[in-house]
Amino acid sequence: MNIPDKVINRLTLYHFILDDLREDEQYISSSKIAELLNIDNSQVRKDLKYLDKPGKARLGYNAKTLKKAIEEKLAFKQTKDVFIIGAGNLGSALAKYSNFKDYGLNVLAMFDNDVNKIGTTINGKEVFNITKVGNLSQRLGVDIAVLTVPRESAKSVANYLAGSGIKYIWNFTTCILDVPKGIKVCNENLIGSFLQFTNNDEVKNNNNDN
Amino acid sequence: MNIPDKVINRLTLYHFILDDLREDEQYISSSKIAELLNIDNSQVRKDLKYLDKPGKARLGYNAKTLKKAIEEKLAFKQTKDVFIIGAGNLGSALAKYSNFKDYGLNVLAMFDNDVNKIGTTINGKEVFNITKVGNLSQRLGVDIAVLTVPRESAKSVANYLAGSGIKYIWNFTTCILDVPKGIKVCNENLIGSFLQFTNNDEVKNNNNDN
Repeated sequence: MNIPDKVINRLTLYHFILDDLREDEQYISSSKIAELLNIDNSQVRKDLKYLDKPGKARLGYNAKTLKKAIEEKLAFKQTKDVFIIGAGNLGSALAKYSNFKDYGLNVLAMFDNDVNKIGTTINGKEVFNITKVGNLSQRLGVDIAVLTVPRESAKSVANYLAGSGIKYIWNFTTCILDVPKGIKVCNENLIGSFLQFTNNDEVKNNNNDN
Repeated sequence: MNIPDKVINRLTLYHFILDDLREDEQYISSSKIAELLNIDNSQVRKDLKYLDKPGKARLGYNAKTLKKAIEEKLAFKQTKDVFIIGAGNLGSALAKYSNFKDYGLNVLAMFDNDVNKIGTTINGKEVFNITKVGNLSQRLGVDIAVLTVPRESAKSVANYLAGSGIKYIWNFTTCILDVPKGIKVCNENLIGSFLQFTNNDEVKNNNNDN
């Protein structure tokens, strides 16, 4: 069964909650989860039906069972190897992000065109010359790239990746890529998140321009 | 008129596209935008109706007019000052993220509890002792915090922020915060994005466990 994107997103958040319970908190109610995330209880119950074994809701859900069911459904144990393209500030921060591994995301190597970075190691991940993507993608069977290059080079780098065996680009730049058919792009739109957060609410605007 | 979150998100992406056009590309069609983002043309047209002056669709939309209309609607010019809480890898990368300023997000200061970081400057932003949040939040009128502390300390830090005048927490940790009513939290769920991206598709799973 295909799970809608929004449900995947929320199941991940439920997992964060379950992961954070104390040893003695054996059960959790859908209403508690809903309250922590400020969403509807009915939404939580509906989402949990996507799991094969969501546990029983009478006492609340068994936390361990529920946690494991999410892990299985979203395949946390199936490691997906990725390349980080761009060993700058954001790329390096993502390479050092320790939580990824728990969810099946494994940064295998990094790539850059800066000779000062090539050959260095960031959190145990070697930085290769970007010209090596094709070769290493094939040899290591990696087809997911995390794109963190400067905006100006995003398009040309994405096209280069598309020709180098990369099939999935997780795009952290503020550039919309124009890649050949068959390449899937996911835009990680941080700017959009911030604007959603601050526009639909009474965030005080500290307008320095006035 | 309140704009739905998803529309805000897409309008931001349309702006990225418009920002990237060459000087001689005066017009753009909704179908071109739709194609670049792999979404429906009708969706783009509907979204653009939220703008006060979306421009005329006959020749395609006038790119400059459309770009300006998005900027006005989403208030890019109204600077929103934020504090980054946690001067680690991710916090530092966000402090150095040059694109934020164009969209009205201004990092005013950073905070940490590490004496080796306090007093240093990251991309021109001073790192203060985290105990100073309350004082500086009040003095500078800042009520938005970007939370990038380690997961273990996320809850206690969030509660401290809630008691220090912070009203909005943009949460980059994998911890679901349990804050008092009146505090708005936006969970930046990178793990969820990745799982959406890789679960609903035939991403080759490089299962190292087999």
